[in-house]
Formats: sequence, C-alpha cells, structure tokens
Amino acid sequence: MGESNIEMLQAEEDKHGGVVVDVEGEHPIDPLHFSSQLQASISNWRQEGKKGVWIKLPIQHSNLVDTVVKAGFRYHHAEPDHLMLVCWIPHSPDTIPPNASHRLGIGAFLINNNKELLVVQETGGRFKDTGIWKMPTGTVNEGEDICAAAIREVKEETGIESEFVEILAFRQSHKSFFQKSDMFFVSMLRPLSFDIQSQASEIVAAKWMPIEEYAAQPFVQENDLFRFIAEICLSKLDGKYTGFSNLLTTTSSGKKTYLYLNGRDANNLVASKSQQD
Amino acid sequence: MGESNIEMLQAEEDKHGGVVVDVEGEHPIDPLHFSSQLQASISNWRQEGKKGVWIKLPIQHSNLVDTVVKAGFRYHHAEPDHLMLVCWIPHSPDTIPPNASHRLGIGAFLINNNKELLVVQETGGRFKDTGIWKMPTGTVNEGEDICAAAIREVKEETGIESEFVEILAFRQSHKSFFQKSDMFFVSMLRPLSFDIQSQASEIVAAKWMPIEEYAAQPFVQENDLFRFIAEICLSKLDGKYTGFSNLLTTTSSGKKTYLYLNGRDANNLVASKSQQD
Repeated sequence: MGESNIEMLQAEEDKHGGVVVDVEGEHPIDPLHFSSQLQASISNWRQEGKKGVWIKLPIQHSNLVDTVVKAGFRYHHAEPDHLMLVCWIPHSPDTIPPNASHRLGIGAFLINNNKELLVVQETGGRFKDTGIWKMPTGTVNEGEDICAAAIREVKEETGIESEFVEILAFRQSHKSFFQKSDMFFVSMLRPLSFDIQSQASEIVAAKWMPIEEYAAQPFVQENDLFRFIAEICLSKLDGKYTGFSNLLTTTSSGKKTYLYLNGRDANNLVASKSQQD
Repeated sequence: MGESNIEMLQAEEDKHGGVVVDVEGEHPIDPLHFSSQLQASISNWRQEGKKGVWIKLPIQHSNLVDTVVKAGFRYHHAEPDHLMLVCWIPHSPDTIPPNASHRLGIGAFLINNNKELLVVQETGGRFKDTGIWKMPTGTVNEGEDICAAAIREVKEETGIESEFVEILAFRQSHKSFFQKSDMFFVSMLRPLSFDIQSQASEIVAAKWMPIEEYAAQPFVQENDLFRFIAEICLSKLDGKYTGFSNLLTTTSSGKKTYLYLNGRDANNLVASKSQQD
C-alpha cells in the first residue's frame, strides 16, 4: 500500500512512443526520494507499453546522476548545463537514436573587384605566430545554417558584409576532438562592403591579398587539402567551377530547411522555386 | 603538511595546453578521497599554467559526477559509457571547443540497367504501414566516411553491393532530436550486384522500381525536398547533373580525409591526384 502514495514523475510523451522527464527546480532533490519515484514511474510506463524513457538532468541536480544510472539508465548526450540519460524499457530491440557525431566548420572565400582574396592572421591555433595568411574560418553554432555561419564569421572577423554564393567543396575528418568528427565547408561569399574593421579577439590582422600570393604560400602548396581548395577557388574565379548553391525548401510539417545542390545543372528547379516564393 | 601526502590524479597533456584525466578501474572510488585528489591536482595544474582540465568519467564511476561538478566543472559531452567534464582554470578567455552538434545521415540512389530505382519499405518510422517505397536511408556511424556509410547501408538493407559515385545534394535540418541538427547526404552509388536479399530487421521489403513510378508517389510530389531530390536524380540519369565526387587527400600529419568537390569541373585536379596515388 505504501507504493501507491509515491508521486509519479512528471513526463511528456515524445513522438516515438517514449516519455521525457525534465527534472526542474533549483532546490536540491533527495536522491532516495527520487529513486522511489523513478522506480514507481518506470513500473507504470512499462505497463503502459512505453519505449524509451529520457531523463534530462540540469547540472544543478548532478547529485541525481548516480541514482538514475543505478536505475539502469545510460548517458545519451550532455550539454554544458544538462545531462540526458536514457533507458529502453520494453523487450523489443532498442531504437534509441545515436548521439550527435560531428561539428561543422566553415572557411570563407571572398574576392574583391581587384581579384584580391580576404585573408586573416589568427592569435591562436596551429597558425599562431607563423605569419601565414588564411581564409576566415569558424565554427557553425548550434541551430545555425551553414550559409548564415559563413556570413557571420566573416562579419565578426573582418567587419565585411557579404552574401552567400555557393559551397565549393567540403571535407569530413575523423577524431578531430576525442572520438568526434568534423565537416568543413568551403563557402564562397560575395562581399557587399570592402572596408576591413577587425574586432574579433582571435584575429591579429585582416587584409585583401592577391589570390596568387595567397596560393603561393608554402603551407598551401605543401598540404593536399589547402592546395586543392586554392585550385578550386582559382577555377571558380575563371568561371570554370560550379559548387552547391542553397535552395530554401519547406517540409510537410512547415519546417524551412536549406537544400544544397548544383544550381547551374538544376537551374529549372531553382527558377521554378523562385517564382513560387 | 597533510596536503603533500595526497596522491595527484594521473593526467595526460593535450595539444592545447590542457590536461586529460581518464578515470580508470572497475572498483568504486570514494568521492571524498577523489575530491581531495582533484583539489590538490587543480592547484598544481594552475601553478603549471595549464588551461582546460578534462575529466573522462566512465559510467561505472557515476558516483563521482556530483563531486566533479561541485569542484567547478561543467559537462562537455557524453557517450553511452562515459561522461566528459571540463573546467577552464586560467583567467584568460575560455577556448574550450564546442560539443558535436550534428548527426549525419545518407539516402542512397541506385539505378540498374533497366533504369529502375532501388527502393525499400521500412518496418518503423514515419513511413511505417503507408505502402510508400523510398530510397534506402541510414545513419553515418561514429568515425565513418559518408561514402562508406552509403555503401554499408545499401548492403545491410538490400544485400546489393555498390560503389560510390557522387553526393548529388545535401540538406541541413535543425532541432531534429532535442536541440541537435542533422545533415542528410543524397548519395549516388553504382550497383555491382542486382539480386536483392533483405535481412535487416528494419526493412519489410526491397525491390527495383521504375523511377517514374517512384517519383509519381504522392509523398514525393507533395514534399518540396523529396520532389527536388527526385528531379535531381532524373536529371542525373539524363546526364545533365553533376554532384560532388570524393577525392582522398592526405593532411600534413598523414591523416587521410575525403574532400568532396565537383569532379567534372575540377577534373584536372582529380586526374593529377589519381596519377600521384
């Protein structure tokens, strides 16, 4: 009879037959009390035929992590302010989605009317104190589109306003930080302003540089990837290369997402879409 | 004088001026003892000018999570079997890299000699019990190349052997699971075998289907993204579309990574690279 007095955990149903418990509040929660609630709740969810049980624990409730693990949960993912744990309760095979595996980065290719390339020198990283001039690069933020990230990074690092043209190439690299991978998208942007005003703390200097001078730097010539990217950029300048442009599409649920495709070859598609919008 | 008897935590230096503590062993560790070791070690690392301190806690040591958080650490990322916590100890601005933000998935476009498309019906997901025939899709595993993931998924779902040709298009979508994003790469493969032998538990049926019949399905016509992808595939069949092919490059540290680029437009690059290998 004691069990029936235990308050169940508040949970929301997800779209996949599971439930999500978002542990809220600033006040400390007693692990023993939480453990009883969790056991009773799991028993209920099992009877209801629920599948994956997710528990989102804000970092202020780190004293409950051990309790949840002891109840049979495993880690799924973590962000600075919370940890997500999961447990698959039915006997059917586990269909819990994998964790995020990749970071995204961009490199920005911008040319002015004198065929000069926008380049920067960084205060840190592998090119620190080398005198090397490189294209602006940066990380794509959570929830940010690649095309928007490229524009933002260029603005932050050099003050230059620009618009997105194409992704010229991309590369996938593994074990970039711990076991995680990264994708790097070389993005061509069209500058809309030309006066450089560098304010970002990670940038020592920024300037417009003749592209041949950039490409002749030893670090570009001695590295397959940098050399290929420089050659692609030179081909692009000569009008001999087409990358992937971005096309805004709407999913059946109304979500807007960018599709990146060869816009020259699929020009009917891009044109018909533009008329529609 | 008591402090000097405390054993320091074992740590390895990373490439960015920080240290990584990998908490090992199967036996439970006393949180109070660990806390003393951690405090003494941080004090040492601070004197040595260390920057980021990383603590990798295997899930069997979940009883230490609270201790590490109380010592000023925050979560960085988690995998099923461990949690990574981090603390930036100097006064300089924090340059801790962000967590992985994206999952990667592939859709596979394969055509046989009769211009038929390889399609499947799934046991679960949004297309369950709809009678819809779709291209094989799947998730890119940790550390796996996109081109390899496409070949593997097709083999698992249909038994068909294939080789990678091109990425025809890709899309980036946000908030796909919790706050994370995903990238989906439409990959063209060339089939090397044609007898379908489906064994994957997630597949009900697989067959070769006339591509026009696939494209005429309402779910394709009514969704921007599926319709555009079908149109790109039809253009590709007519020889009117070029995607991104893969070029294996070697970084200066000897790491092999794939660069994806317009191989038709950059054919000199691809040809010179092939001769070199």
